[in-house]
Amino acid sequence: MGLPENCALNLHAKWPRGARNLISDVPGVTVGHATINEGDIHTGVTAIFPHQGNIFRDKVMAGASVINGFGKSMGLVQIEELGTIETPILLTNTLSTGTAHEALTRYMLEQNEDIGVSTGTVNCVVTECNDGRLNDIRGLHVKEAHVREALESASADFAEGAVGGGTGMVCMGLKGGIGSASRTLQTDGETYTVGALVMSNFGEPGNLVIGGKHYPTGARPCKESSEAGKDKGSIIMILATDLPLSERQLKRMARRSMIALARTGSYCGNGSGDIAIAFTTANRSPHYSEKNILDMRYFYDEEIDRVFEASVEAVEEAIVSSLYHAKTMTGIRGNTYPGLREFLEKC
Amino acid sequence: MGLPENCALNLHAKWPRGARNLISDVPGVTVGHATINEGDIHTGVTAIFPHQGNIFRDKVMAGASVINGFGKSMGLVQIEELGTIETPILLTNTLSTGTAHEALTRYMLEQNEDIGVSTGTVNCVVTECNDGRLNDIRGLHVKEAHVREALESASADFAEGAVGGGTGMVCMGLKGGIGSASRTLQTDGETYTVGALVMSNFGEPGNLVIGGKHYPTGARPCKESSEAGKDKGSIIMILATDLPLSERQLKRMARRSMIALARTGSYCGNGSGDIAIAFTTANRSPHYSEKNILDMRYFYDEEIDRVFEASVEAVEEAIVSSLYHAKTMTGIRGNTYPGLREFLEKC
Amino acid sequence: MGLPENCALNLHAKWPRGARNLISDVPGVTVGHATINEGDIHTGVTAIFPHQGNIFRDKVMAGASVINGFGKSMGLVQIEELGTIETPILLTNTLSTGTAHEALTRYMLEQNEDIGVSTGTVNCVVTECNDGRLNDIRGLHVKEAHVREALESASADFAEGAVGGGTGMVCMGLKGGIGSASRTLQTDGETYTVGALVMSNFGEPGNLVIGGKHYPTGARPCKESSEAGKDKGSIIMILATDLPLSERQLKRMARRSMIALARTGSYCGNGSGDIAIAFTTANRSPHYSEKNILDMRYFYDEEIDRVFEASVEAVEEAIVSSLYHAKTMTGIRGNTYPGLREFLEKC
Amino acid sequence: MGLPENCALNLHAKWPRGARNLISDVPGVTVGHATINEGDIHTGVTAIFPHQGNIFRDKVMAGASVINGFGKSMGLVQIEELGTIETPILLTNTLSTGTAHEALTRYMLEQNEDIGVSTGTVNCVVTECNDGRLNDIRGLHVKEAHVREALESASADFAEGAVGGGTGMVCMGLKGGIGSASRTLQTDGETYTVGALVMSNFGEPGNLVIGGKHYPTGARPCKESSEAGKDKGSIIMILATDLPLSERQLKRMARRSMIALARTGSYCGNGSGDIAIAFTTANRSPHYSEKNILDMRYFYDEEIDRVFEASVEAVEEAIVSSLYHAKTMTGIRGNTYPGLREFLEKC
Repeated sequence: MGLPENCALNLHAKWPRGARNLISDVPGVTVGHATINEGDIHTGVTAIFPHQGNIFRDKVMAGASVINGFGKSMGLVQIEELGTIETPILLTNTLSTGTAHEALTRYMLEQNEDIGVSTGTVNCVVTECNDGRLNDIRGLHVKEAHVREALESASADFAEGAVGGGTGMVCMGLKGGIGSASRTLQTDGETYTVGALVMSNFGEPGNLVIGGKHYPTGARPCKESSEAGKDKGSIIMILATDLPLSERQLKRMARRSMIALARTGSYCGNGSGDIAIAFTTANRSPHYSEKNILDMRYFYDEEIDRVFEASVEAVEEAIVSSLYHAKTMTGIRGNTYPGLREFLEKC
Repeated sequence: MGLPENCALNLHAKWPRGARNLISDVPGVTVGHATINEGDIHTGVTAIFPHQGNIFRDKVMAGASVINGFGKSMGLVQIEELGTIETPILLTNTLSTGTAHEALTRYMLEQNEDIGVSTGTVNCVVTECNDGRLNDIRGLHVKEAHVREALESASADFAEGAVGGGTGMVCMGLKGGIGSASRTLQTDGETYTVGALVMSNFGEPGNLVIGGKHYPTGARPCKESSEAGKDKGSIIMILATDLPLSERQLKRMARRSMIALARTGSYCGNGSGDIAIAFTTANRSPHYSEKNILDMRYFYDEEIDRVFEASVEAVEEAIVSSLYHAKTMTGIRGNTYPGLREFLEKC
Repeated sequence: MGLPENCALNLHAKWPRGARNLISDVPGVTVGHATINEGDIHTGVTAIFPHQGNIFRDKVMAGASVINGFGKSMGLVQIEELGTIETPILLTNTLSTGTAHEALTRYMLEQNEDIGVSTGTVNCVVTECNDGRLNDIRGLHVKEAHVREALESASADFAEGAVGGGTGMVCMGLKGGIGSASRTLQTDGETYTVGALVMSNFGEPGNLVIGGKHYPTGARPCKESSEAGKDKGSIIMILATDLPLSERQLKRMARRSMIALARTGSYCGNGSGDIAIAFTTANRSPHYSEKNILDMRYFYDEEIDRVFEASVEAVEEAIVSSLYHAKTMTGIRGNTYPGLREFLEKC
Repeated sequence: MGLPENCALNLHAKWPRGARNLISDVPGVTVGHATINEGDIHTGVTAIFPHQGNIFRDKVMAGASVINGFGKSMGLVQIEELGTIETPILLTNTLSTGTAHEALTRYMLEQNEDIGVSTGTVNCVVTECNDGRLNDIRGLHVKEAHVREALESASADFAEGAVGGGTGMVCMGLKGGIGSASRTLQTDGETYTVGALVMSNFGEPGNLVIGGKHYPTGARPCKESSEAGKDKGSIIMILATDLPLSERQLKRMARRSMIALARTGSYCGNGSGDIAIAFTTANRSPHYSEKNILDMRYFYDEEIDRVFEASVEAVEEAIVSSLYHAKTMTGIRGNTYPGLREFLEKC
């Protein structure tokens, strides 16, 4: 549901929000979660489907931007070379990426009997942040069944906050997690949508900025956070659109996520693996084709600023929404991170 | 002199400013300007010397970040490959880069009889922004003599605002130009400096943010600006330090300039060539060496956040300082752009 | 005219040559030279037109690959960001790039009254190699008139060898220069062309390989070369095609030029600025457009190997052709570099 | 043992081979294999240890080059950002990378109690090629125990050919696999080693070149290969050295692997994921440090050609050695790929 419009933290929206104010306002995009909360275990998996068909056979054009490469995301090398995504995108904790990758591989093999036999292999996209401040990350508690649960529960309606891959995440000394938002814009007589979904786990306590206002999250007496002051932990930012953009343009769009990060108070610290991936549902790349020369569409670069602005707004609001929806959590080693709304009530 | 400490626009400085609050607080760094204001001509050249010795023979380690590559800067390819700068850095208008490059080539040849005879050639670094909103840029009014003037007048004390390469620049619908700032930090028992110099020519009128506060520069009744709303025009951001950083780390430092840009209200529009270059005076690469194995020093990455923060602060303040020092100018086609201080008094 | 088909050095051509066996077999592509041979001066300019219309208004899609960035080429940053070329491409000597850039800027301003007034600036593409082994490169003998001559003499028929930008170049201890070749391939019922033009100035004497055969160019008694053994000097490789490729694909195509380089005996030495640029005439990007959503075409990546192979063959043959057409030259400081044919007759 | 010196395929070695002619000639480097041959299963894991201490606490400086990014290697993003490797490097089949990643994660957690508790996470490096032409790759037959076996069996002496990760690989229509070689060079009074290890799975049948000689591997009557003509399948190339190189220089070194690939007949086809990683044991980056300013050494770039040449020779010879040691194999679907020596005897 995104950030409520009547919320005190409401951000300026130069570009109108989509109907759900979620990444799933882009037609065909769905999101599923598996959330694990048991004792010291606070982790999970989130899955994003770019569309509802066979993604391997009908790839979406994509671009990625490594804003700060202290990260272990998988699949970016091939996105850069081929400009496509051919699997759902997973978000989970850092040490569970291997497990998630194997599970996604098995899922893709099931859906595609040709992979590894009559055609090549598959490039699974798995992204991550380190949830070790709240989760027993060393326990490798994400299992294949969780990945399946995330994949199978995907829907245009989905929860935000401390759910899925975002369950144990921490952001700016507060409880982080999954957030989403969308913007719409009109061009050539049509309305298009830009949607964002983030897994927020970045930032130095005390640095939070929302809508230009500084919230000294690390300051007493509200310093419940268990964290020393360092910008660490990472953020994954996924952008989806039904605008026809080229791979090059999707990379440009992804790169602007750094602006959104800065607007919320980050300076992209050394230990923050900040990765952005953008895809369009409007340019598909077929796995099999009888023709060698194919059609695509792209956006007139001279007028692309609106797309950049809408992207920055969506990512910024998705970050705030991730904080808004996450509630105070006490996790491993007794670490407590306050939810933004509880933090604001107290301070 | 940077932004005055008692200025109403004073920015928070987590890291202390250097003595001059200029890039020249890094020992050895000097800056010179040639400023041309004649009729419709409002342009010039700025030169930055990384040190006072023979730069070709005693190169400084460097890294660059192309934040948005709608730009014509020269010399970046070799910085990326070899990690060094071997000439002064020039800043001028976009259409005069060829002229400036030839002039800098001639200057380097004079200083180095070996170039092109007993050794290879030289990689001149020339950067640019488009000052065509105030300057008769099509006239190509920068001549070799101006480049010489900038090079020969270089000093640790230098003017900011509408001077040198910044003479005809425009930023956020206001008068832009050259700005500088510095920060100091301590490590391993020593004090080091990070200095920034920018040539500001970016941003969409109405978007200016200073210290978290939004200044609606494009709004009436203060809309004296002659500009339609687009983030165009570019910014060059030069970072200098006496901290020993590797080429890789200098590139990371340069990339953080995008955070400073965002803090002042930019979203890195399509037409904004946003280029950052960082160098260190503490790691030198000799043109001639009898030994093949050479020493350098680098910064422990786990603690490099302070360097990133200081860099972001210095670049942000350099941008504000460029606006602070620039006065209202009416240029070609009667275009007028108000200086920030005059704008603030009126509105 | 490319490498004659009955030449002893004939290379295997898996893909048929075009009619001229030149880059100009790609319809619309023309090449012009200005050649300067006076005393110690042996240098010049070559200009490549991607098409015969207004290139600034009707840009060609392009991609570049920096194989080894010890080079000073101008314009690559914007090719990477925007995926287009909007001027003719110049090839000249390293120290004359500034002059050539200014001259090309003036040419573009003449052709386009809007540049710098009602629209932005222009990204001139100027590439270079160091001809200082034969030419008085320090004299900066290339003037605006030479650039004009190269631009104005452009034609589908053009000379190869020690002409234009290639006049003073040296390759593998032999006389280098300009070479060109082409290949054709069929797909979807149409015939398409891939053309290459190189300015060869790379390689270590003794390492030359042609068609898999090693020619010990530096070995006595044929060691007329004045050069010590180092792979230095650079190569510029321009690829043109009328195949519809995306910017991403053009970059992939350009990167394969390194294979062609390797086939002729290079190991891409430290001092060799090896730069490849590829463009297509089949995808145009308009400077002005009323629509924001535009059409382009691209090649089915799964079948793109034929394009890569044809590109490698064309670049390899263009390198050999540059050597084949260049004759023995004695230049500055009495340096002599034998032409390949004279070298082969003697040894 | 590398390619025997008296072998008919002997390559020219401008730079002397190391004692073993293996990557383990670099002191401290060891290699282990787990090989699986059961029915249709022909796959495995190879592990490379950069040194014998705690790699996480005492990281090696590294650089990588994505020559053709149709590949799924994990860990490259962080190598690019931080310039270090902090785990053993694994090589396995494409669809088993997730499993291998999880197993390596568990191994690293065992060795380092601090990971995920008092310090951050770990960047596992896992590389791959597609062995589906001989192996039941869809069966995901690599298990944690195999990864353990590879890690625990690592030694300076190790087998080449169809072993470890190379068990089911195919190269140029012949049986591929693991190959290794080394070169030594002297500088500043010391002798240093450059070692290479490859997992060869690339190339189009019929294109093989060894030492400049073309071997038409796909031609009848020797066409036993089960493959249609496409350059697909990938190669992983690992370079190790005890030369002190910077991260930037290691990346340059890695990039030259493309020259070695070209020398053996590849044109880097679309489907070939060609990845090179280079590390040095001579520059270590500590995970914990009390000082922030650290020492490293680098190589005088003007004389680095010898390092590039030795690297190209070592990678080229490692490829040939992988073919030399691999024997004819019949695998899944009855596919047969001849070993190079058997192929040569017959033809």
